[in-house]
Amino acid sequence: MAQNIYDHPDFFAGYSQLPRQVHGLRSAPEWPAIQAVLPDLHGRRVVDLGCGFGWASRWMREQGASSVLGLDLSQNMIERARADTSDPAITYRIADLDTLDLPEASFDLAYSSLAFHYVQDFARLARAIRKALAPAGHLVFSIEHPIFMAAAHPHWSSDQDGRMTWPVNRYSVEGERRTDWFAKGVLKYHRTLGTTLNTLIEAGLQVRRVEEFAPTPEQIQEMPELAEELERPMMLIVSATTQ
Amino acid sequence: MAQNIYDHPDFFAGYSQLPRQVHGLRSAPEWPAIQAVLPDLHGRRVVDLGCGFGWASRWMREQGASSVLGLDLSQNMIERARADTSDPAITYRIADLDTLDLPEASFDLAYSSLAFHYVQDFARLARAIRKALAPAGHLVFSIEHPIFMAAAHPHWSSDQDGRMTWPVNRYSVEGERRTDWFAKGVLKYHRTLGTTLNTLIEAGLQVRRVEEFAPTPEQIQEMPELAEELERPMMLIVSATTQ
Repeated sequence: MAQNIYDHPDFFAGYSQLPRQVHGLRSAPEWPAIQAVLPDLHGRRVVDLGCGFGWASRWMREQGASSVLGLDLSQNMIERARADTSDPAITYRIADLDTLDLPEASFDLAYSSLAFHYVQDFARLARAIRKALAPAGHLVFSIEHPIFMAAAHPHWSSDQDGRMTWPVNRYSVEGERRTDWFAKGVLKYHRTLGTTLNTLIEAGLQVRRVEEFAPTPEQIQEMPELAEELERPMMLIVSATTQ
Repeated sequence: MAQNIYDHPDFFAGYSQLPRQVHGLRSAPEWPAIQAVLPDLHGRRVVDLGCGFGWASRWMREQGASSVLGLDLSQNMIERARADTSDPAITYRIADLDTLDLPEASFDLAYSSLAFHYVQDFARLARAIRKALAPAGHLVFSIEHPIFMAAAHPHWSSDQDGRMTWPVNRYSVEGERRTDWFAKGVLKYHRTLGTTLNTLIEAGLQVRRVEEFAPTPEQIQEMPELAEELERPMMLIVSATTQ
């Protein structure tokens, strides 16, 4: 069973104040890059894995998805998501991605934002998703980038010219990473980029697009603090299909 | 036209003394990982892009390849490769990967070791390779890993625990990187891992395997200095197919 940090009171209180939790998708700088790799949603059956407050679930219904099933481990999240919609085509349910079991060939899109790095057995999850996808199905997900996650002490430093520099070590040593983020010892699982992609391929998916999110010049002009994201990628976005 | 550093006398003298140039494939720690993703070579027509002294070209003939065309920009390399074989099924030719033009559907395997990071226009090269591959064709190549290449000053440092740490900056800033390696100002081109994979996919290839080379425990026992490769990947190995 995955660590349920989102129901830890301190964590939840801090996390709920993140701009993307308060203002939704438009406050997530990677959202345009995710949108660019999403399939047409009209009439699609969507499962949103790690749906949080349900911002993306609701957006997908607005784009014409015929149904959205939002799953999250956190009771806090699911309660808040349920309170924020009365749309009968959106269903929210508590579920653990580490033991996920979905009905066969019943979704056209599996979507996940920044949740899979909490999953210990990604191969199991990839097989469960592949099985749950209908023909011509899509998987689109974001995770923390392994460059961002690998190091024992993942903090900025400066190089000899004063340029912001990110440390990489233990990159090939996969497994647990604990960081302090709104709470002590948040547990994540580091996998190399190769492992993430090979796991999808072995589960029977075709890799269609790999985006190491970097802000556009327009985004940097609007939010200069995003410029540091050019130095090292914080997020990885992957699009894959069943055929 | 690519920088022809391999015909620079100082560079060539130093490079020729590398263990992998003196002793061949068995001195390249990534070679077992490359072998693992190579297709069966029996009866296959192979093009070796950046063949150097021809170690891999000769090995592929020994494994049953019906013909091998070895291409390299360096006259020094091609002359030495020619001198090292009398096999009429191996042909060596001087060629620039930046302007490569191969006959259509005429190879079953395009192979390349540590050459593509010298190529400025990878999209052009990927299309040329795709066009040159026959049905059920394979592309297998290694390049310097973008984590290894990105930083302005790519040198080891230590983190607060004394662990060897590799710097990453300018990761999303693609383009020229100059390093001093046997000669001053060796010119390479940094591309993100995403760009490398997306370029293959856009050229009509399917990504089959992505290996961020890390030594095995057995390799580290034999050569303890390889342990540092666990901290950050130096090489990327990709396998792709036409279908």
